[in-house]
Amino acid sequence: MKFVIQRDDLVQSVQDVMKAVTSRTTIPILTGIKIIATEDGVTLTGSDSDISIESFIPAEEDGSEIVEIQETGGIVLQAKFFSEIVKKLPKDTVEIEVLNHFQTVIRSGKAEFNLNGLDPEEYPHLPQIEEGNGIKVSTDLLKTMIRQTVFAVSTSETRPILTGVNCQIENGELSCIATDSHRLAMRKAPIETNHDASYNIVIPGKSLNELNKILDDTDEPVEIVITENQVLFKAKHLLFFSRLLEGNYPDTSRLIPSDTKTELTLTTKEFLQAIDRASLLAREGRNNVVKLSTLDAGMIEISSNTPEIGKVIEQVQSQSVEGEELKISFSAKYMMDALKAIEGTEIYVNFTGAMRPFVLKPLHDDSILQLILPVRTY
Amino acid sequence: MKFVIQRDDLVQSVQDVMKAVTSRTTIPILTGIKIIATEDGVTLTGSDSDISIESFIPAEEDGSEIVEIQETGGIVLQAKFFSEIVKKLPKDTVEIEVLNHFQTVIRSGKAEFNLNGLDPEEYPHLPQIEEGNGIKVSTDLLKTMIRQTVFAVSTSETRPILTGVNCQIENGELSCIATDSHRLAMRKAPIETNHDASYNIVIPGKSLNELNKILDDTDEPVEIVITENQVLFKAKHLLFFSRLLEGNYPDTSRLIPSDTKTELTLTTKEFLQAIDRASLLAREGRNNVVKLSTLDAGMIEISSNTPEIGKVIEQVQSQSVEGEELKISFSAKYMMDALKAIEGTEIYVNFTGAMRPFVLKPLHDDSILQLILPVRTY
Repeated sequence: MKFVIQRDDLVQSVQDVMKAVTSRTTIPILTGIKIIATEDGVTLTGSDSDISIESFIPAEEDGSEIVEIQETGGIVLQAKFFSEIVKKLPKDTVEIEVLNHFQTVIRSGKAEFNLNGLDPEEYPHLPQIEEGNGIKVSTDLLKTMIRQTVFAVSTSETRPILTGVNCQIENGELSCIATDSHRLAMRKAPIETNHDASYNIVIPGKSLNELNKILDDTDEPVEIVITENQVLFKAKHLLFFSRLLEGNYPDTSRLIPSDTKTELTLTTKEFLQAIDRASLLAREGRNNVVKLSTLDAGMIEISSNTPEIGKVIEQVQSQSVEGEELKISFSAKYMMDALKAIEGTEIYVNFTGAMRPFVLKPLHDDSILQLILPVRTY
Repeated sequence: MKFVIQRDDLVQSVQDVMKAVTSRTTIPILTGIKIIATEDGVTLTGSDSDISIESFIPAEEDGSEIVEIQETGGIVLQAKFFSEIVKKLPKDTVEIEVLNHFQTVIRSGKAEFNLNGLDPEEYPHLPQIEEGNGIKVSTDLLKTMIRQTVFAVSTSETRPILTGVNCQIENGELSCIATDSHRLAMRKAPIETNHDASYNIVIPGKSLNELNKILDDTDEPVEIVITENQVLFKAKHLLFFSRLLEGNYPDTSRLIPSDTKTELTLTTKEFLQAIDRASLLAREGRNNVVKLSTLDAGMIEISSNTPEIGKVIEQVQSQSVEGEELKISFSAKYMMDALKAIEGTEIYVNFTGAMRPFVLKPLHDDSILQLILPVRTY
């Protein structure tokens, strides 16, 4: 293998595939990046066996040459060193050449690195996924849907299925749901499917977090291909594979209350900042709990009390309060997570009693829903 | 105590004094910030007993009111909570009032915090330092001198005196020296002293690092007042106290070679980047060692070799090489620290043999000197 490549393109690709590489792997070759040079260009692969990322650098794009392939072939290089090296090379172009015994030379200007490589044949094969029946979603929408739900996955391995986001595709609608059993986040959006696709899968939260980092902010489409135990996201020059979680995701639809006792409309930012302040002293107490009480004239009161440190009380003017009086306690962290996920300057909150789950939505928008279980305080 | 204060001024002052506060203290009250309100303004104090920082917020500055003092007095508030609270207050002004039993109310807009405070009388007194015989140094110069030397202090407590920077004032010259016995950094500058001052003190490196963070980049003077066991840096509205290290600092002047065997002149940036690249593979080996060899025609070669990972070789064109041929090994980290500390686009390096300390200086500038001991390689 021998080629000369534009350094900036190489650096970007290496950064992308590095997101899948971990030093904590039981398969030593996975600490490396696989580099394959063909006549068409160079493909880099990184993997931790849960997530695999493949980045393709075309030999030529938009009429300008990015890679000059002198000899096709492949190598696996230690990701940690290779990524540091390419970032610090002195010139705009880099020559990479594999000699005998997987010895690899990286040349740029007057600097020459010799790295001990590994046999690319030893690198695990990526899952083979049949193409052609993918679902297309705009990158922006996909990133927003991930951001609005993934924070609510469980971080505990007690119920592994809850560490993933449940994605359902049915009747031309994609819905994403995450819950850690104390709160739930849901986002729906219509998508274009050119067939009667119906899927119900659970994607690890960790995979979606990495995917979100790696995807550019663009309205270009991402193609999603789903198989038995893998999902593939295809963006321009980028393939992102993740394994799926096995098992049945709980039916969450019955958790969402349909009745109502107290309805509030609030300015999102003002409410978020008041919760944030109240949580400053609550953070130290058990569960980071703050209290919300309705007062007269549409005012609500946010408070928290940690006797050893102090207490905080703040009044927030609501846009409207309807229904019964209410005193309720909840986790400030869950509330702030939910408020940050909701787009829109005004939010609608529906309480069904001090001991029952309550729901937050943007005003006049049912595509996103955040549900939080209150905390009992005595 | 009761006053109303501009939030931004309070936030800035709290941030400054926080630099002295640590949660790892054996004196519980030092986890707090002392607040004293007089007719003239508000004084905040933070201390870890090695470093103490006092920040003064005047009641009025440049004709505009910053603090409205309604009742003089004092309080000590938990630094961690107080600093978080003031940053997140909703309005531009803050009211702080001490009630009975050191209960303190912080009000801003419709938010009201109650914090349990402590008796300011219990707070340790700052050292009393006689004023009037201080030395004036411009803030910029002081910060530069700290930056150019403090990195070379020892991090080991084996010889505590080496964890400080030796500052000598004599004949109108300030010189700062730091060494960890493997390398040495020295910087001299003429200063204005209005008396025949002569000092030889050792200031803890940690104190100087904090001082450097807290001082603004300005050419306003800092006044330095030195006593038996304390040094005080006085800037506008800011007092920074540090204890001094006890003991005799070693005489370092005889370490600096006066002879020469090989002299190099190099472009600082090019040389630094080559060392940085060579260190990428050296970092993993013992001591992060790179090798420098003189070649023909003014070329020098920088290399490192870690058999398990690989090797790197790079040639750098020097401006000039004079004297004997040379092969020498040294710590890449020490070399990079020294090169970063040196101002100037070209450096002069004076070697006195492969096993003897060598010296780096900016070309045609003797005010700064960096000395490094080579590493034996077999």
